[in-house]
Amino acid sequence: MSFDATRNYVEEIRNLIEEKNEQEIISMLQDLHPADIAEILAALALDEAMFVYLLLDAEMASEVLVEIPEDERNKLLNVLSPDVIARQYIEFMDSDDAADILGSLDEDVKISVLKEIEDKEIAGDIVDLLEYDEETAGGIMAKELVTVNENWTVGTCLKEISRQAENVDDIYYVYVIDDIGKLKGVLSLKKLILNNTNTKISNIYNPDIHTVNADTPQEEVARMMEKYDLVAIPVVDEIGRLKGRITFDDVIDVIREEAERDYQMVSGIVGDVEPGDKVWSLTRARFPWLLIGLTGGILGARVIGANEEALKLVPAMAFFIPLIAAMAGNVGVQSSSIVVQSIASGVRDFESTGRKLIKEFAVALVIGLAFATLIFCYNFFFSSSMELTWAVSISLFVVIIFASLFGTVIPLVLNKLKIDPALATGPFITTMNDILGLTIYLLVSKAFFNVL
Amino acid sequence: MSFDATRNYVEEIRNLIEEKNEQEIISMLQDLHPADIAEILAALALDEAMFVYLLLDAEMASEVLVEIPEDERNKLLNVLSPDVIARQYIEFMDSDDAADILGSLDEDVKISVLKEIEDKEIAGDIVDLLEYDEETAGGIMAKELVTVNENWTVGTCLKEISRQAENVDDIYYVYVIDDIGKLKGVLSLKKLILNNTNTKISNIYNPDIHTVNADTPQEEVARMMEKYDLVAIPVVDEIGRLKGRITFDDVIDVIREEAERDYQMVSGIVGDVEPGDKVWSLTRARFPWLLIGLTGGILGARVIGANEEALKLVPAMAFFIPLIAAMAGNVGVQSSSIVVQSIASGVRDFESTGRKLIKEFAVALVIGLAFATLIFCYNFFFSSSMELTWAVSISLFVVIIFASLFGTVIPLVLNKLKIDPALATGPFITTMNDILGLTIYLLVSKAFFNVL
Repeated sequence: MSFDATRNYVEEIRNLIEEKNEQEIISMLQDLHPADIAEILAALALDEAMFVYLLLDAEMASEVLVEIPEDERNKLLNVLSPDVIARQYIEFMDSDDAADILGSLDEDVKISVLKEIEDKEIAGDIVDLLEYDEETAGGIMAKELVTVNENWTVGTCLKEISRQAENVDDIYYVYVIDDIGKLKGVLSLKKLILNNTNTKISNIYNPDIHTVNADTPQEEVARMMEKYDLVAIPVVDEIGRLKGRITFDDVIDVIREEAERDYQMVSGIVGDVEPGDKVWSLTRARFPWLLIGLTGGILGARVIGANEEALKLVPAMAFFIPLIAAMAGNVGVQSSSIVVQSIASGVRDFESTGRKLIKEFAVALVIGLAFATLIFCYNFFFSSSMELTWAVSISLFVVIIFASLFGTVIPLVLNKLKIDPALATGPFITTMNDILGLTIYLLVSKAFFNVL
Repeated sequence: MSFDATRNYVEEIRNLIEEKNEQEIISMLQDLHPADIAEILAALALDEAMFVYLLLDAEMASEVLVEIPEDERNKLLNVLSPDVIARQYIEFMDSDDAADILGSLDEDVKISVLKEIEDKEIAGDIVDLLEYDEETAGGIMAKELVTVNENWTVGTCLKEISRQAENVDDIYYVYVIDDIGKLKGVLSLKKLILNNTNTKISNIYNPDIHTVNADTPQEEVARMMEKYDLVAIPVVDEIGRLKGRITFDDVIDVIREEAERDYQMVSGIVGDVEPGDKVWSLTRARFPWLLIGLTGGILGARVIGANEEALKLVPAMAFFIPLIAAMAGNVGVQSSSIVVQSIASGVRDFESTGRKLIKEFAVALVIGLAFATLIFCYNFFFSSSMELTWAVSISLFVVIIFASLFGTVIPLVLNKLKIDPALATGPFITTMNDILGLTIYLLVSKAFFNVL
């Protein structure tokens, strides 16, 4: 559905809400995808959204609930009683969605909802899933899947699938297990269709499969599924028993999240904010990094302040302060983000860290020489002071080398220490390199102007 | 396969290559996934990789070829003759992979390979796909899919699938078409299994489906598949005839690419580089943005230079130049990247642009006031000059307001003009805001020190 289509729906539904024309609203929403309805609800005021939401039948309501962004969703859920949430919505959902939604509720609400779930098997599955860390395979897997025994025939299998398929929307693969629940391999529906009903499963299943453990980090799951183009991956426990499966849509969310996190880091924003968020959320997301910038700026002021006498004698030294600071910042961010991006993309790289540093040093040399020459030419023709011309060029060269080495080394070190290397991008590296650049520039300039 | 596993394989294979022990290499690679073999090949020198590559059987070789990064792949292909490329590799591939690979070759090599393809239907499919823009649905779709006629029964369908399935690795959906090839809907394999062989297809297929056109931009395809959790989406022409399909793995690549492009933009890198790339590629990727930074720095030097007299009288004015520039840059990048990220994520937002600007203005006011107060307190206690204390605080306030408004407006304007809004992030906005900040700061300071 296009943006304008959604907007038209929103307008029309607003009018119908005012007229309390429930029948018309129901028929308007009938043919829409849950994701579209969720989008419309998110655009309405809370009381309007509530009015519309309560008109949906239980199955659609549970599908829509999954699609509504967390903040809006919790507002809706806070108005509903735990038994309605449990019996009308949660019981209709896949276990992973149910666990996500319950996991985002307050502890006491979560427990009351869990108690109200009538089907104890469903409740048990959700409680199991809530145990796992949100950012691991266990945290994103679903319990719903179709399993068959390796000793069965294709015919038995097809019957069993009919029985189990009710709870599983998209099957993709049938998982083959042995008598104690150990995963032996997978069978595609295509293979089932192409084989005779008397064929033994053990003769046709594919035993050569990729699996993950419940505690595998979600980023690693994403990288595996991406590398091997897997539509779903089974999750097994320590002794190989099948625990759940992760599908491609979960992994797309992980990739999106990870990319957004790195992007926010390099642009100096903390957390996930949209231009439509509250002023307070937007401010809070931007404050921490700006505070680092301010602290850096104050340190910079002290560095320059310590050279007040020199500046009084040669005010021209101040001209190139922003240039040096900007170049140091830019070079540093470039270096660190190349490293961070290569770590994030998961592309294997067989070059040793030592070789990478040598290469980065070579790049820094080339860039440093090029830009030192460029600024030398500019100053040679447009500046009246040869001292300044030399001082700016030489400091720029030195600053570029240092900035790019720091930019490369710091994320590599953070990564080794198992800290998110993306921390080393953005305002942090810019601020550090600003101060470093300033110090080098003022030292070199004073030397040239003989005002040390 | 883990990183260390690959490294061990590489070491072992290197030894075997030296011993020319072909048999052992073949048996080592036998059970590996094509993506793993591609990773190993990428880690070998070209002649070593060639030696190993030629040992693979045609089917495996073609699968491996698809997984090798473009640069390395073209090196391999340059050594091979067009008829080998065509008959041993291209003919075994899915049409979209074949088109990707041919599209990356030089025009004359591409044509010779196309001429050597024996199966003219395959050649025709590839030529068709090469017509489409690489970044559209047509550019990423594959021609391989399973179609059935709406008038058939489940039984006929299953037979037809057995016939067609040979060319399609993963079926996901069967596409239902009418007599002239118009797409009517889809049928999941699950539905086929769950229904009786006499059931008419027209009674069970799902007519309510999402489709894209061949010229739909790939980002839009990705957003649709992500929003509706689609494992595959059919591509149709203007009158609804089925042309191909796009699967989730293509879309993961698009999402990854798009995220990387935005990330590179904000960190000032042009194009896709890895720390392992050649020094020259790395340098070239970083040069353009640094040139913008240098130009900005020179402009900054001129702005300060125009105030040389004032600086001579009050050198302390120089102290806070880096602080003002850094804050202006950071605030600008934050604002622009919030806008860019929200455009990229495709999350709909029903707030008008006017309201967004008012909100951004409010955020800027809060941040501006907060940081102006902070720096006022610092200077009040640690600086000897009340003029400087006032000048820095007031300029910082004004600069933050301007920087965040520019940071918000420019990407919005670019987006309206159909230019990539991400251009407004990174060095561009930093540099612009640096100069703006400097100008405001010097003007305000001179006013306070009465040296206008």
